Amino acid sequence: MEELDAFTYRDRVAGGAPVLIPAGSIEQHGPHMPLSVDVLLSRKMAGTVAEATGCLVAAPIVYGYKSQQRSGGGNHLTGSTGLDAATVIAIARTQVLELARHGVRQVAFVNGHYENYQFLYEGADLAIRELRHDGITDMKVLLLSYWDFVDDAAIAELYPDGFPGWDLEHGGVLETSLMLLLHPDLVDMTRVADIPPAQLPSYDVLPARPEITPPSGCLSSGAAATAEKGQILLDRASAGMVAAIRGEFGM
Amino acid sequence: MEELDAFTYRDRVAGGAPVLIPAGSIEQHGPHMPLSVDVLLSRKMAGTVAEATGCLVAAPIVYGYKSQQRSGGGNHLTGSTGLDAATVIAIARTQVLELARHGVRQVAFVNGHYENYQFLYEGADLAIRELRHDGITDMKVLLLSYWDFVDDAAIAELYPDGFPGWDLEHGGVLETSLMLLLHPDLVDMTRVADIPPAQLPSYDVLPARPEITPPSGCLSSGAAATAEKGQILLDRASAGMVAAIRGEFGM
Amino acid sequence: MEELDAFTYRDRVAGGAPVLIPAGSIEQHGPHMPLSVDVLLSRKMAGTVAEATGCLVAAPIVYGYKSQQRSGGGNHLTGSTGLDAATVIAIARTQVLELARHGVRQVAFVNGHYENYQFLYEGADLAIRELRHDGITDMKVLLLSYWDFVDDAAIAELYPDGFPGWDLEHGGVLETSLMLLLHPDLVDMTRVADIPPAQLPSYDVLPARPEITPPSGCLSSGAAATAEKGQILLDRASAGMVAAIRGEFGM
Amino acid sequence: MEELDAFTYRDRVAGGAPVLIPAGSIEQHGPHMPLSVDVLLSRKMAGTVAEATGCLVAAPIVYGYKSQQRSGGGNHLTGSTGLDAATVIAIARTQVLELARHGVRQVAFVNGHYENYQFLYEGADLAIRELRHDGITDMKVLLLSYWDFVDDAAIAELYPDGFPGWDLEHGGVLETSLMLLLHPDLVDMTRVADIPPAQLPSYDVLPARPEITPPSGCLSSGAAATAEKGQILLDRASAGMVAAIRGEFGM
Amino acid sequence: MEELDAFTYRDRVAGGAPVLIPAGSIEQHGPHMPLSVDVLLSRKMAGTVAEATGCLVAAPIVYGYKSQQRSGGGNHLTGSTGLDAATVIAIARTQVLELARHGVRQVAFVNGHYENYQFLYEGADLAIRELRHDGITDMKVLLLSYWDFVDDAAIAELYPDGFPGWDLEHGGVLETSLMLLLHPDLVDMTRVADIPPAQLPSYDVLPARPEITPPSGCLSSGAAATAEKGQILLDRASAGMVAAIRGEFGM
Amino acid sequence: MEELDAFTYRDRVAGGAPVLIPAGSIEQHGPHMPLSVDVLLSRKMAGTVAEATGCLVAAPIVYGYKSQQRSGGGNHLTGSTGLDAATVIAIARTQVLELARHGVRQVAFVNGHYENYQFLYEGADLAIRELRHDGITDMKVLLLSYWDFVDDAAIAELYPDGFPGWDLEHGGVLETSLMLLLHPDLVDMTRVADIPPAQLPSYDVLPARPEITPPSGCLSSGAAATAEKGQILLDRASAGMVAAIRGEFGM
Repeated sequence: MEELDAFTYRDRVAGGAPVLIPAGSIEQHGPHMPLSVDVLLSRKMAGTVAEATGCLVAAPIVYGYKSQQRSGGGNHLTGSTGLDAATVIAIARTQVLELARHGVRQVAFVNGHYENYQFLYEGADLAIRELRHDGITDMKVLLLSYWDFVDDAAIAELYPDGFPGWDLEHGGVLETSLMLLLHPDLVDMTRVADIPPAQLPSYDVLPARPEITPPSGCLSSGAAATAEKGQILLDRASAGMVAAIRGEFGM
Repeated sequence: MEELDAFTYRDRVAGGAPVLIPAGSIEQHGPHMPLSVDVLLSRKMAGTVAEATGCLVAAPIVYGYKSQQRSGGGNHLTGSTGLDAATVIAIARTQVLELARHGVRQVAFVNGHYENYQFLYEGADLAIRELRHDGITDMKVLLLSYWDFVDDAAIAELYPDGFPGWDLEHGGVLETSLMLLLHPDLVDMTRVADIPPAQLPSYDVLPARPEITPPSGCLSSGAAATAEKGQILLDRASAGMVAAIRGEFGM
Repeated sequence: MEELDAFTYRDRVAGGAPVLIPAGSIEQHGPHMPLSVDVLLSRKMAGTVAEATGCLVAAPIVYGYKSQQRSGGGNHLTGSTGLDAATVIAIARTQVLELARHGVRQVAFVNGHYENYQFLYEGADLAIRELRHDGITDMKVLLLSYWDFVDDAAIAELYPDGFPGWDLEHGGVLETSLMLLLHPDLVDMTRVADIPPAQLPSYDVLPARPEITPPSGCLSSGAAATAEKGQILLDRASAGMVAAIRGEFGM
Repeated sequence: MEELDAFTYRDRVAGGAPVLIPAGSIEQHGPHMPLSVDVLLSRKMAGTVAEATGCLVAAPIVYGYKSQQRSGGGNHLTGSTGLDAATVIAIARTQVLELARHGVRQVAFVNGHYENYQFLYEGADLAIRELRHDGITDMKVLLLSYWDFVDDAAIAELYPDGFPGWDLEHGGVLETSLMLLLHPDLVDMTRVADIPPAQLPSYDVLPARPEITPPSGCLSSGAAATAEKGQILLDRASAGMVAAIRGEFGM
Repeated sequence: MEELDAFTYRDRVAGGAPVLIPAGSIEQHGPHMPLSVDVLLSRKMAGTVAEATGCLVAAPIVYGYKSQQRSGGGNHLTGSTGLDAATVIAIARTQVLELARHGVRQVAFVNGHYENYQFLYEGADLAIRELRHDGITDMKVLLLSYWDFVDDAAIAELYPDGFPGWDLEHGGVLETSLMLLLHPDLVDMTRVADIPPAQLPSYDVLPARPEITPPSGCLSSGAAATAEKGQILLDRASAGMVAAIRGEFGM
Repeated sequence: MEELDAFTYRDRVAGGAPVLIPAGSIEQHGPHMPLSVDVLLSRKMAGTVAEATGCLVAAPIVYGYKSQQRSGGGNHLTGSTGLDAATVIAIARTQVLELARHGVRQVAFVNGHYENYQFLYEGADLAIRELRHDGITDMKVLLLSYWDFVDDAAIAELYPDGFPGWDLEHGGVLETSLMLLLHPDLVDMTRVADIPPAQLPSYDVLPARPEITPPSGCLSSGAAATAEKGQILLDRASAGMVAAIRGEFGM
């Protein structure tokens, strides 16, 4: 959608194309990957899904919710640049409302930043409530976090030594493999911190206790990442999202 | 704290007692349990932890965030009464600020409603930021969801036929067992809907699709619940929370 | 409503039952009564009215607006835990909206905390405006402060030595008598501060001047309180509210 | 302050002058008085007090909170133009903050619209909280409603046939007499609706029930109003406010 | 509208009269003019337009957005008293909503404070969106800044030595001439600072750099101001606004 | 900054590098250019300035304020996707606050969307106020709209037939020339609508009157655009911004 002119966009919308909104963040991802990993990956994921389904991809949410220590290292770290909940909610709400004004009736957020989820949900919920006040009751919104579509078989294949859990996959094998596949020029594998998975408590502490985030800012090691694993991840996640979109949007 | 007079409360706070804030919801919990299950259980959990640690228990958050379909059946259901994100955030933020004004420096939310978590987090984060503006930098806030302290051993013991996942535990064995233990007069086991675990997608759809929530509103069956299982759950969860509180608060 | 399961609640709502929402606060009430007096009394008042009319009672508003010095001693006092106006407004607004979604069309706030009133009003007003956007124009909301239904005859009977005014009745004869009747185990009459009514200015000063609130935090003495007086108060107030509800709701 | 240039204003502020902020409303006041009665009277009251004390008078709050049926006839009436609570709060908060930035440390709201009071209070409270974050702890704010300074002796003199209560004094003897004294050209006594005091319930109903507001929009009759009574009211109210300001501000 | 009683106002509105809302500010205007110049001029402008067109004039927006350094000297100056954006937006939004409730369908803001413009725009935009939710789609709002109606011919006539630009016209020939015409008693020409136009950058710096605002607070000299120039300005500006209103409102 | 890893970013910040934030929009730019023109150009402008000065470039503001009819064709047009004022303000405010947390003390917004300006200003102003509460008083923020740095000489050279004004430069020579220089693959000159400059009123009308925006959505013709003109514009604008940044930031 960013690279389309308005007239072409109007034709696509008039043809009933759903719109995918990538949702990322500006967040530290260790010494070996850039701050925009979540933006880059959610855009590529959305792009892959769009190619397979004929959806449009909207301009991304670049800044997301504040990094949380147990899933992103914490928003006390320099580089991570997080928005308050109210702002993420407002952005998501407006995107749905504006797309509805354009005539779009099927929207899916393709989320690449764990912390965004509940706030995208609230934004979509508020938008649907407000659309109802305008007499629009046929808007449908999906909330997809791409890792939720990687199945157990793929996990077993990708993590032969055991899976640390999605929350610890910050800057780890998942994201590094996908970046090696999709943006190899932005990964420097010589700078990977090959650390054991972080030992994090089963609760949050505020303010963050800096000592429980590994010095690299990654919660597990990306050393075992390869572009091949990235391809498997991309295939499985995009296949799952394609299926969900086709099913929900009747495509 | 609700049953204390202000003078006694002041003595306790002056003595350095941390404060636990139970966070519940008004949400349908099937035909066999009342709308206030999350309030009741978070209060009892907090009470058990307080007895073991000498913490105070604040008046609870009674109304929580909107029920979500994949963890609570959905906020389209009559009876479930959910607040918007901004309101939950404001309540949590104010509680931390007011307790800080009282002189409290150690606060833990004891959460009994899955959907609340990210909004309690934001409220606590905003409060800590504002306290810093008042020169108060030694406030420490914990966010505890009680089920996160039930370990794998207990799960294996409690769910011999396999564990459906915490999100599907809405109105299921966990909550029903705890209610049988702690508020047996408010449970009617003859009304339990003995259903297989709900088959829910790995993403959210808005507006909710009513047909994917089981008619009972429960996401798994509570038929196997017993007060004995409730005791195991209470013991494990409270032991875990006691350990977390002692460790973090240096008690 | 808290102790009802969702199915029973739905039957009651389908039968046209109005809903009463008790609105309290967490606020110091002297050395002889707990912080939750306003919650406890507004619930009992609502319960009494509900029994007489067939209304449902919703889960209460536990935390209310900040205590003001001329009616509650002031929010500078430790123990009193007040919300900002925006939060009280949001809670009241959401309650009306959610009850409307359930199908309820008759709601009454039963207020037990003087300071809440204008903010409950705003919340109800905003909800009615928003409901209109959904095409719902038959919602009716009442705002009842229970003491407004105690008539002059009762006052003459209860205060033979003169009535200090409702605003000075914080922690005084009214509340203490009702607590002696309804929650005697939570009152310690040996701790009543038998003080003359506070001499307060006819205006507010911010920040509060601590020296004008009596050390007990009560604005008049509860020493003359008895359960018998509590019974008179409960009878008159509930009779007045019952009449108002019957009249307005056509019951 | 409105008619002062900035340099003169700075001299006055540097000299320690307190600032009075008149708070009015745009609200119907019957067929015999203009919509701006509350603005006009609060300005004159503030002006009288300022002359006696050397205070400055700020530009007024022209639009106030929504008219309520039991004190102003209701905001359903054409002409009455009310702000939401959040806006009144924001205006009052900003005025205190901006005056603090100017160097003012003593501020008094002179309120002429019953419904404003709690929202001015909240605005002042939020401002004082925010000033504390800037290290400013010596700001003092008074909230004065001018009728609260009319004593019982004056009431007996002014209302020989009995006093209907301040809330029913909307468009009645009090306001009409003051207008006859202070803005006689804006009063048309031939248009006074000489009605008995309105019979209003002891609670609010939303939405407003139009039939309980008298057709004139006044809650009691202004027929007995005279400029002489206006002078008594002005003298008593301003004397009381002058005393309060001198006492609180140490003048 | 301020001086009308509600019944007369209702007749005028029923007759289809549009409403003009003057939007001013409390802002320093140099040593020779009062803080309320923008309020005074926008009211007189609106009054002149109203006389020619039969519009009503609403009570003004007295406090406007914060003074900006490049158009008003900056909000760091004592005397200038600015509201945050959210508050100006809320006021403008509410005014349109309330006038719509009265039955008005044609509203024009007559702006006299450069900084207000975008926030009035947002307020009007939000109001129109909300009115749509009420099924009201025929509200029309104009945003007029009076200086935008002074044409090039008039400028050449008024500024024989060259026109500094509207943004530098703060406290300069435009405003001073209009004040000399409309409120001569509030101008003291002996106090005019006869300075060259301020040299301001083509960008904003925050916080303001006090040294780039001239000591007088005016951005250009008002020394050449005369009542005759004021008459030309008033004639041209009001003629342009009258034409715009007639054209847009079909009068 | 987007392509930097967090460790490299920290080194740059520790070295005192200022940060530039490009501010764009998603807005129709006629049939010949994409929706993201303002994002693309503000990034390239910022990049050019950064190369010359050693500043960092932050991830851009992708979605900006709603398109206004007199400067962007209007937000009623499909494709244009605008945020409410409150959201733009919140984003700008947070960016300044987060960069301050990182240790940055010099920030410049490089604005490429006319409508954003006042809301970026408010965001920066609120951030500076809040930073003061944290004891941070040395943050400095610049607001640069790149076209404000194109001088009269360049305009005369670029527009030999007369300059329509910056506001009408939406989709015209300025933006098209810059796109031809910087993103030629995203411009299709065969689709340029060669129209005379739009005749727009000197005021805004809400809701937008669609008939006054040319069908192309451009307010003037881009037919005369060339990459050479783009180079002149880039050179002049960036040179002006470089000078401003060097001067203000003491580089």
